[in-house]
Amino acid sequence: MDLNADLGEGFGAWRLGDDDALLNVVTSANVACGFHAGDPSTMYRVCRLAVDKGVAVGAQVGYRDLAGFGRRRIDYDHDELRDDILYQIGALEAFCKVAGDRVRYVKPHGALYNTAAVDEGQASAVVAAVLAYDPALPVLCQPGSVLARHAAQKGLTVVGEGFADRGYLPDGRLVPRSRPDALVHDPDEVVTRVRRMAVDGAVVAVDGSVIACPVRSICLHGDTPGAVELARAVRAGLESEVDIQSF
Amino acid sequence: MDLNADLGEGFGAWRLGDDDALLNVVTSANVACGFHAGDPSTMYRVCRLAVDKGVAVGAQVGYRDLAGFGRRRIDYDHDELRDDILYQIGALEAFCKVAGDRVRYVKPHGALYNTAAVDEGQASAVVAAVLAYDPALPVLCQPGSVLARHAAQKGLTVVGEGFADRGYLPDGRLVPRSRPDALVHDPDEVVTRVRRMAVDGAVVAVDGSVIACPVRSICLHGDTPGAVELARAVRAGLESEVDIQSF
Amino acid sequence: MDLNADLGEGFGAWRLGDDDALLNVVTSANVACGFHAGDPSTMYRVCRLAVDKGVAVGAQVGYRDLAGFGRRRIDYDHDELRDDILYQIGALEAFCKVAGDRVRYVKPHGALYNTAAVDEGQASAVVAAVLAYDPALPVLCQPGSVLARHAAQKGLTVVGEGFADRGYLPDGRLVPRSRPDALVHDPDEVVTRVRRMAVDGAVVAVDGSVIACPVRSICLHGDTPGAVELARAVRAGLESEVDIQSF
Amino acid sequence: MDLNADLGEGFGAWRLGDDDALLNVVTSANVACGFHAGDPSTMYRVCRLAVDKGVAVGAQVGYRDLAGFGRRRIDYDHDELRDDILYQIGALEAFCKVAGDRVRYVKPHGALYNTAAVDEGQASAVVAAVLAYDPALPVLCQPGSVLARHAAQKGLTVVGEGFADRGYLPDGRLVPRSRPDALVHDPDEVVTRVRRMAVDGAVVAVDGSVIACPVRSICLHGDTPGAVELARAVRAGLESEVDIQSF
Repeated sequence: MDLNADLGEGFGAWRLGDDDALLNVVTSANVACGFHAGDPSTMYRVCRLAVDKGVAVGAQVGYRDLAGFGRRRIDYDHDELRDDILYQIGALEAFCKVAGDRVRYVKPHGALYNTAAVDEGQASAVVAAVLAYDPALPVLCQPGSVLARHAAQKGLTVVGEGFADRGYLPDGRLVPRSRPDALVHDPDEVVTRVRRMAVDGAVVAVDGSVIACPVRSICLHGDTPGAVELARAVRAGLESEVDIQSF
Repeated sequence: MDLNADLGEGFGAWRLGDDDALLNVVTSANVACGFHAGDPSTMYRVCRLAVDKGVAVGAQVGYRDLAGFGRRRIDYDHDELRDDILYQIGALEAFCKVAGDRVRYVKPHGALYNTAAVDEGQASAVVAAVLAYDPALPVLCQPGSVLARHAAQKGLTVVGEGFADRGYLPDGRLVPRSRPDALVHDPDEVVTRVRRMAVDGAVVAVDGSVIACPVRSICLHGDTPGAVELARAVRAGLESEVDIQSF
Repeated sequence: MDLNADLGEGFGAWRLGDDDALLNVVTSANVACGFHAGDPSTMYRVCRLAVDKGVAVGAQVGYRDLAGFGRRRIDYDHDELRDDILYQIGALEAFCKVAGDRVRYVKPHGALYNTAAVDEGQASAVVAAVLAYDPALPVLCQPGSVLARHAAQKGLTVVGEGFADRGYLPDGRLVPRSRPDALVHDPDEVVTRVRRMAVDGAVVAVDGSVIACPVRSICLHGDTPGAVELARAVRAGLESEVDIQSF
Repeated sequence: MDLNADLGEGFGAWRLGDDDALLNVVTSANVACGFHAGDPSTMYRVCRLAVDKGVAVGAQVGYRDLAGFGRRRIDYDHDELRDDILYQIGALEAFCKVAGDRVRYVKPHGALYNTAAVDEGQASAVVAAVLAYDPALPVLCQPGSVLARHAAQKGLTVVGEGFADRGYLPDGRLVPRSRPDALVHDPDEVVTRVRRMAVDGAVVAVDGSVIACPVRSICLHGDTPGAVELARAVRAGLESEVDIQSF
């Protein structure tokens, strides 16, 4: 089982999350590439640290939207979206190369993640970028999403991810953040849920039903209070059950 | 002799220069990488066209300064400047790769070009970026500049360039643009000067003296009135004297 | 009847349209405020010229989207959209003030114009910004749009505008740009249509029906080939029928 | 005596400093205007809070440099710098107006502050912006600086400020941040120094000499560890000696 988290999400003088601590917990670092967060020096620093620690670096690609942190859906022309993604992958590749490794996967961020999960056009733009850049590059996304389907149809490797602290609807989608049961707050429950994902490939939905959750990676949040402690607890809880390593 | 020009210098809805026409004249395209000009879709388009025509693509790297077109000197921290340059090279590399080639050289733009020509710190930041990325990547710059010296000292390949339509001071530097003799306006004279650079490695300075101008590339301007016609005239004038090909 | 056009839509080194020529034709200048186009020095210059010529200056407010020229729909939080609009109005006000006048109206641009025409949330964000800034400030928009309705309900002055060279659907909306009949290309026909809007408050829709088009302003395009000549023809065609002056 | 601090220096998802706590200590809030920090919604929020608390709002104007937080010196064309400053003042004015007040003063930020303190051109650009916008608007800057001199010569009100926790050179300039004695770390000593500035108009320089420091405002830092506590201690230490109120 892989553990991934968003890293390098500061910009210039602004910091977000505790990159150094999380790099000791995760096996995959989704590094922001400068369009919604991340600046070149932060990217360089995180890539070097990640490579030093044996953590795989993935391109956390997003909309060109620093002011909105990539969380505002944008109706891009699909070719332009593909090109923005290519640009970001290439930029991150430079720092991976200098750090002695290469970009290992691609994961869309924020509103692009959510939109590509349901929108054919944006999903195909993400797939087109990865196909053009390197068809061997895995895409990290939610199982069952439009993006997962498109990527698989085009022959890309799809790595399904589960969310450690998010509630699930009976159909496998996440509970919208506007609902009170969107987040699982109790650390013990989070660990229990993650273990079930890892061991059984299943999760208990908000209606109590047990649904399939066939994931090869668990997404940990890095920018919430107590994030690092929760991440450590999840890792500790998983280590007794499965091997923790990048996909 | 190589002919280079700045290309892909539009941004979004805004266009600058006639990329398509110039790609039929030059042998090297300095493609803007998005920090002072250039957007991903323009980069992709220019890279594909360039590769189709056998034109070498170089990274036209600049300050993060869209509003100033990279023409305002910025006192960067040198590590941050190195990282901004690495980022830009990587981003362009993605489009070169998709187009079936790779970044062939690096040329600083605007105020970074001028500053790295005289400033040890910024010159060394450019050199550090190229060294870290790929020590085999040539740097295109003015012969005798601080950047040329630094790059050579570090073992980089330096390609000296001459300016087709700029006046030279007796010490080999360009006449500042604020002076009336900064530009050579007569097309015939431009062609004559360029031929002399190519054949004799020399140019007549503004005081009438003949100075060494050991260049392997001629820089053509793309965004001035009559730029394309002048570029064609220079190429035609050189073809009878030397081979026109990228370095 | 008022004639309006988008002006000041360059950014830094990039120019778009012929501001100087259009300022001799229009009575209202929609000046871009820096978020999707327009930079401070361009805003200053256009405001001074407009005030010198007695042209009213309006705030052409748009999404924060230089790369997409404000033409990509963005799902803003509504309070953040209101604040982005307030910011832009205030910025333009500084240049109007220095030029000896003030912002005379607000007109949304591009995807914000189109979205606020149909979306309750974005329309109310535009209205909230204008109400908070100055309830006496008119909003320039399409008659019958959601924005027009919201603005009127809140007591704002709504100035309806017609489009000189756009086809109309029988329900009063514009023909989408993707359709071949989206644009009216024949200058004589454009003039005939505009005169009918001005004199009868009506326009012939694409199905031949005559529909109401109660407008107090005609929108002229500034960035298409032949834009200035068409604008002059429209003005000349209207001058014999109605007074040409700002609302 | 006035107490000023930089506020509203976050951007989008990124926060910096504790605006709410500092607004209970200062009498003047230098609100970032969006070019080096600050976004519209943050500006709106801080302006409303400041006006509610009776804190004067000033325009913290800076270079267009989000990535460098306005700390990189930029060689602007002076007219363009003036226009960038006008734009920022106007943008902030919109939020002050909506909050029921107006922009009360202008204070340059970061590298613009430092450059305008020694550079005639940039100082005159700041002065030109304020003069054009409102000649009654005070400029907050260091006594003896080029900016202070230029502003006074043009008839602007100059408010001199002292730095609570910075070391001074015998000539009245600040000790460069690269030196170990740039900052005064001991809270008691900071309070003692500030009281001396307020009561005697003097400060002890790093060589032990007592130099004139004729200030009407004390600058408190908001983004360093312990900043709020130090700010409270300074205010408490001053309250027994002088009235604390905006200029």
